[in-house]
Amino acid sequence: MDTRLRAGEVVTALPEGQDAALQFIGRIHTPWTRREDCPRQGRLDGPECRIVVFAPWVAALEGIEAYQHLEILYWLDRSRRDLVRQNPKGDGARYFGTFALRSPQRPNPIGTSQVRLIGVDGAALVVRGLDCLDGTPLVDIKPDRCEFTPKAPPKAADLG
Amino acid sequence: MDTRLRAGEVVTALPEGQDAALQFIGRIHTPWTRREDCPRQGRLDGPECRIVVFAPWVAALEGIEAYQHLEILYWLDRSRRDLVRQNPKGDGARYFGTFALRSPQRPNPIGTSQVRLIGVDGAALVVRGLDCLDGTPLVDIKPDRCEFTPKAPPKAADLG
Repeated sequence: MDTRLRAGEVVTALPEGQDAALQFIGRIHTPWTRREDCPRQGRLDGPECRIVVFAPWVAALEGIEAYQHLEILYWLDRSRRDLVRQNPKGDGARYFGTFALRSPQRPNPIGTSQVRLIGVDGAALVVRGLDCLDGTPLVDIKPDRCEFTPKAPPKAADLG
Repeated sequence: MDTRLRAGEVVTALPEGQDAALQFIGRIHTPWTRREDCPRQGRLDGPECRIVVFAPWVAALEGIEAYQHLEILYWLDRSRRDLVRQNPKGDGARYFGTFALRSPQRPNPIGTSQVRLIGVDGAALVVRGLDCLDGTPLVDIKPDRCEFTPKAPPKAADLG
């Protein structure tokens, strides 16, 4: 990992412990093998990518073909996690707090993308819309919230 | 945690190890103190909630006021993580794979919501659109992708 800082960037001391543990549930295959080749943002008309789900979770795909759009969460495993203030252009001129950016450098480096589901191929989903490196670990797959309706009846707090 | 299964629900054996560690970066305050009171989905016209960022990360809010909509990631700390197939209505009639649901029960129980930013109050964001319990641990804050434009120039893969 590149730990060099740009002028004016600010880091914080990371805690020693951890608060929760993730398990990777699959792996994402994309055309991009170098960070500098990844798009800055995914596009729904971007290239086809494959999300391969590990064996214990393949049955959890049941019914997913009903959705055209999914939300994908993945682990940006090459990111530094201590940056508080960043200089995205590397020009030393303009800074942003980490939470005002979608940069991969963040305390919990989880990327989220909305993707279009092209098809289900056994343990793999074929999708468009990702922006991550080939080999990125998969953290979650959900129906996109724009399209999803809860499968149980509304509760009081759901009603206006 | 309630570990009872409904008829027809399926679990998998969870791995013993872990693949990545999360650090909580704040805490979310909502009006809902019991799971049964939480809405099934957040609404942009729902009640005001407060997202309080822990001290090391307050400076990372710099510039966030430029966004009307944020994406919030949080840890659903009361969820079981081994459910592969679920019966949301509890009626024993209709089942869905976990990845075809936005249920809190999932291998990596991370909730995501799109929220409207009402205001910044020191270390706290006032927002509408959440659906989680009072006290839920905060994992990430990002500008919502609908509104965010990368701050560095496009790369080849960003161009059509």
